[in-house]
Amino acid sequence: MPTSLNAAINPTSIAVIGASDNRNKIGGRPIHFLKSFGYAGDVYPINPNRSEVQGYACYASLDALPRAPELAVICVAGADAVAAVKACAQRGVKIAVCIASGFGETGPAGREVEAEMVAAARAAGMRMIGPNTQGLANFATGAITSFSTMFIEVPPADGPVAIVSQSGAASVVPYCMLRERGIGVRYVLASGNDADVNVCELVREVAQDEGVRLILVYAETIKDAANLAAAAQLAHRRKVPIVMLKSGRSARGAAAASSHTGAIANEDRVVDAFLRKHGIWRAGDTRALVNAAELYLNGTDPGLGRMVALSNSGALCVLAADLAEQLGIPLSRLSDQTRTLLAAALPSFATSTNPVDVTAALLTDSGLFGKVLPILAQDAEVDVIYLAIPVAGEGYDLQRFANDAAAFVQSTGKPVVLSATQASVRAPFRARGIPVFETESDALGALHQCAAHRALVAAGGSVVFAPTGVTVPAGNAPFLSEAQSLAVLAQAGICVVEHELCGSEAVAVAAWQRIGAAVAVKACSPDLPHKSEYGLVFLRCDTETKLREAYRACVAGMRSAGAKAEGVLVARMVGGRRELALGAKVDPVFGPVVMISDGGKYIEALPDNVLLLPPFDEAEVAAAMQRLRIAPLLRGVRGEAPLDVAAVSRMAVRLGALMSGLQESVQSIDLNPVIMGTAGEGAVVVDALLQRA
Amino acid sequence: MPTSLNAAINPTSIAVIGASDNRNKIGGRPIHFLKSFGYAGDVYPINPNRSEVQGYACYASLDALPRAPELAVICVAGADAVAAVKACAQRGVKIAVCIASGFGETGPAGREVEAEMVAAARAAGMRMIGPNTQGLANFATGAITSFSTMFIEVPPADGPVAIVSQSGAASVVPYCMLRERGIGVRYVLASGNDADVNVCELVREVAQDEGVRLILVYAETIKDAANLAAAAQLAHRRKVPIVMLKSGRSARGAAAASSHTGAIANEDRVVDAFLRKHGIWRAGDTRALVNAAELYLNGTDPGLGRMVALSNSGALCVLAADLAEQLGIPLSRLSDQTRTLLAAALPSFATSTNPVDVTAALLTDSGLFGKVLPILAQDAEVDVIYLAIPVAGEGYDLQRFANDAAAFVQSTGKPVVLSATQASVRAPFRARGIPVFETESDALGALHQCAAHRALVAAGGSVVFAPTGVTVPAGNAPFLSEAQSLAVLAQAGICVVEHELCGSEAVAVAAWQRIGAAVAVKACSPDLPHKSEYGLVFLRCDTETKLREAYRACVAGMRSAGAKAEGVLVARMVGGRRELALGAKVDPVFGPVVMISDGGKYIEALPDNVLLLPPFDEAEVAAAMQRLRIAPLLRGVRGEAPLDVAAVSRMAVRLGALMSGLQESVQSIDLNPVIMGTAGEGAVVVDALLQRA
Repeated sequence: MPTSLNAAINPTSIAVIGASDNRNKIGGRPIHFLKSFGYAGDVYPINPNRSEVQGYACYASLDALPRAPELAVICVAGADAVAAVKACAQRGVKIAVCIASGFGETGPAGREVEAEMVAAARAAGMRMIGPNTQGLANFATGAITSFSTMFIEVPPADGPVAIVSQSGAASVVPYCMLRERGIGVRYVLASGNDADVNVCELVREVAQDEGVRLILVYAETIKDAANLAAAAQLAHRRKVPIVMLKSGRSARGAAAASSHTGAIANEDRVVDAFLRKHGIWRAGDTRALVNAAELYLNGTDPGLGRMVALSNSGALCVLAADLAEQLGIPLSRLSDQTRTLLAAALPSFATSTNPVDVTAALLTDSGLFGKVLPILAQDAEVDVIYLAIPVAGEGYDLQRFANDAAAFVQSTGKPVVLSATQASVRAPFRARGIPVFETESDALGALHQCAAHRALVAAGGSVVFAPTGVTVPAGNAPFLSEAQSLAVLAQAGICVVEHELCGSEAVAVAAWQRIGAAVAVKACSPDLPHKSEYGLVFLRCDTETKLREAYRACVAGMRSAGAKAEGVLVARMVGGRRELALGAKVDPVFGPVVMISDGGKYIEALPDNVLLLPPFDEAEVAAAMQRLRIAPLLRGVRGEAPLDVAAVSRMAVRLGALMSGLQESVQSIDLNPVIMGTAGEGAVVVDALLQRA
Repeated sequence: MPTSLNAAINPTSIAVIGASDNRNKIGGRPIHFLKSFGYAGDVYPINPNRSEVQGYACYASLDALPRAPELAVICVAGADAVAAVKACAQRGVKIAVCIASGFGETGPAGREVEAEMVAAARAAGMRMIGPNTQGLANFATGAITSFSTMFIEVPPADGPVAIVSQSGAASVVPYCMLRERGIGVRYVLASGNDADVNVCELVREVAQDEGVRLILVYAETIKDAANLAAAAQLAHRRKVPIVMLKSGRSARGAAAASSHTGAIANEDRVVDAFLRKHGIWRAGDTRALVNAAELYLNGTDPGLGRMVALSNSGALCVLAADLAEQLGIPLSRLSDQTRTLLAAALPSFATSTNPVDVTAALLTDSGLFGKVLPILAQDAEVDVIYLAIPVAGEGYDLQRFANDAAAFVQSTGKPVVLSATQASVRAPFRARGIPVFETESDALGALHQCAAHRALVAAGGSVVFAPTGVTVPAGNAPFLSEAQSLAVLAQAGICVVEHELCGSEAVAVAAWQRIGAAVAVKACSPDLPHKSEYGLVFLRCDTETKLREAYRACVAGMRSAGAKAEGVLVARMVGGRRELALGAKVDPVFGPVVMISDGGKYIEALPDNVLLLPPFDEAEVAAAMQRLRIAPLLRGVRGEAPLDVAAVSRMAVRLGALMSGLQESVQSIDLNPVIMGTAGEGAVVVDALLQRA
């Protein structure tokens, strides 16, 4: 079903406003490309000073065209570009691609002009790509409205990869790397400033093309989480992986992004949590963006990812074992039978454990891989083979090695990847469809990514829970009082400390007696969210005298601070094994976010926390908590019993539901401390603070 | 001055035992190489079945030679190899290179045979390389006794790089990568099993060659720390950097290394500390081993490393800023004058802050880099330039860009590095001597490595301190008692808790009264190093009753445990701000090692520590402590005063001196806890345990 953006990637007619005969001018390049790459639709150069451009009839204006073009690429600058956008909107153009720079990325004045263009487009039902975009390219149809030099330098070929990027350069860098490896690319889309159409929408658009089997994305800001989530869902349904390079992680990077594409900074750890939730793999740099492409495209099923490393070099075996541990790739434990067979097949000084070192004996026995691979094929513990041939050449039968590897893949369906320093060694393997890499790190990085990405997609996002239906009491103070906050949490099914809000000293004494143990006495006022800073928290009150003194100090303290006194809170002192803190907030782009953190005084100075985006289930919380630095303590160390991760997981799920339900009225919820007991003992919120939106 | 290994890298005559006419046989390759690569010394093929091999006169045996060859390469296997080693020793050969595998790396029996060869060699004053070695190559003289296929596939050229490796493959992988980049390599030395000559000795040997300006090392075990340290000292004196890839980090990697070269596992964190101390850069993988080669070789002085990133792509500017933060590369803060000049030189929509985005306007104005670089040249905050040209080609004047970059380097002496996706863009820069990289990560990784490596070398190793002269009391128990341990520390000038060893209850009471505060009461016996596990530590005794009860419990506890009772220790309870632990031990290869660790119950489960190898000074300890996770607390957070890092540094230096002085008699020293106060308050050892060697 065509969507409103279909004309962006698949236009039936294209006008080029500011058309040039010079293919090295921005107004000349698209026309050159449309002609060279076989675009079959109508091409309308527009330039009042010419009658013909690069062999096409040229028109003086949009109005002079025989019909409205589906897409118009605007190659004029400044005020002319703004006028052209408006003219396109009036003429009934579906998609305007505005290449000119100098708008939102330059500051407030530029943003204003940009907004004017967007308004004109939207009023007419037109969509605008850019401004400050390199343009769009569809190599299936030859609809190229981009001015990139790269398409002259590195010949295109249609294929299964879609590249979607805010930046033009960052779109053609992966294009170049893939094309040099012989991989075809269908789309290279640059969205520029994302003033109207944003990079997430374009990802969603290409995810619908049945010919696309891998999507690579470069973004400096994500401002449309919903469309990216929808794109991921579409893509996963078709088993199409999405890999994203999201820059602007650092303060200086975010500042640079703002001057580049007018990007608004995202909170980077929330981006991580979002991408993880939606099964989008986050690449660390441009090489990592493309590194696993062959593995993705050949439909590699890494199964449980248990790997055998096999090499003619012991050093590569050692390096592979080190890297496997570092990346978390499990090494296959070979069966006794496999090892016996390997030992029989290999020279006596070779290694029949995993990694398998066939040694330099490969120089004299070209059949070694052919003997070893069928043995490994029969071992159920083997999911993938990493073959390292760091050196070979004269005297080595490379063709036979490649055939042996291909035969293994064909007979087992299990993937083989190769690393080889020499291009001449990689070539025959590549020709047989084996993914090849130059270094051990690239090869194992790709294998790891494939398996981990698959696990991420499998784990993701089927949970739907209803928000809690809890409401917050009305009020004008920016914060709820502690008693109000605890009441909201309790309604949401979150276990809070036993407590009572006391309006008189006598009630407080009675509360203490009823609790029957040491209590904490705290001032309760919506005006004093940080009451301990006022010295209005009294812990371990275990005598009536202490209790009464604390009560009076709280009342006096609230009075002298001029705070509205709701009362004095008397709460049980809770013992436990570990202090955590849970929090939730509403991110302006990504919505509700829940944080689970180790607790204590240095929660900010020595951060140890994980973020999750609701909805999520208890298993996801428990898995995320295993990424905490304190994870060993949760499992129990030094003979200690494990901690009650299940109770905290339950609490986090309910907190997520609560935050989701209250996001219109509440900005953040802090539960600190949360006291966690031994498994089975539960977890309890001892203090809480809700901030209104 | 020639050393005993000079004949290994620079032999005047070479015999090849097991010589073959077939250049694809192990016995044929060295002869082929000696002939092809212009070796001018005498070549003696040895093979009883031939009179000529590859054009050289062939001899039946070593004895048949006109004179003893300086070097003999043994290409026969098994028992023949052993016999050949012995024959070489008898004949007066200086260096035997034993290529055969199947010795130490296969297990105990192999190790025994290997030891026999070493014994024969040593008895005759001969040195042996290998067994299980690929051999040696010196491309300055053509003395190639290696059988590597790589020298056929990738033509050699003499140059400033020495590669020394246990593994043959891991020696030719960097060779291949460097040669493909046009860099000459002088030495490619593989040491194999290191049975006699080890990899560290060979590093020391090549470090003496004035023609060598960069040394790359691959090792699976370091067993000769002294020679590696000496090599580093030699190299640094000549400003020659050493970069090492040390594998066998992981358990499986160490196991694989053991079957590969018979390598004995090093403790990896001690390796880190050793390499850091000796200014040897540790590379993470094979690419990282060679990545910064051009920067090292062109004598790049990165100064303070403050970088300007400059690109025609905003995306690369953003990525560079992110990476700079990640790697710790400082970004130059451009002066107002620089920014004003940049703004005037650039299009209005370009960015005149750092990173500098000249934008795609570079397509229409080829002079942009030429305008910008001279402006940057005048800013004192600029140490290095990172130029990113992710896309260029037709319409771009690449030659001019390269000339502009080279002119900047020439006029300022400041380095420029380039990253470019396309080989065609890299080529003109490479031709002008600019180090080029394919990706932003490689380029910035190399820049960072150069600056950080230089800082490492500058920081390293001028400290010499005298050991303390302290001795330990005689005894047979594996541990010293706490009182003995504390006494040794006190003699070494380490501040220990106020305490008294009490032989009677009355003495204990008097001690408590003298201390005048709460005390800890502990059983003191060399037989109970872990006394708290026996419940024989009583904290916070603040009444005579508690004290007496604790005393009696200690006495009774030692009696029932059958432990030799030295007495009962009464020690002041020490308050402070943070609990640390310090430790020292003797590593079998690297000698004394000092650990500084965050303290507490979970010291093993949640490790946070740094290692240092004595001698070191207080500044080195303080710098190392900044690498602890708790470093922010040391500096003071949340308005807290900083902690007394100086006192802990002093303590660590004295502990290092003590461990160095006692390494014959003491295996380890544990100070746990060490209570650290606010700056100026000091640090005090509360419990200590010395283990005898």
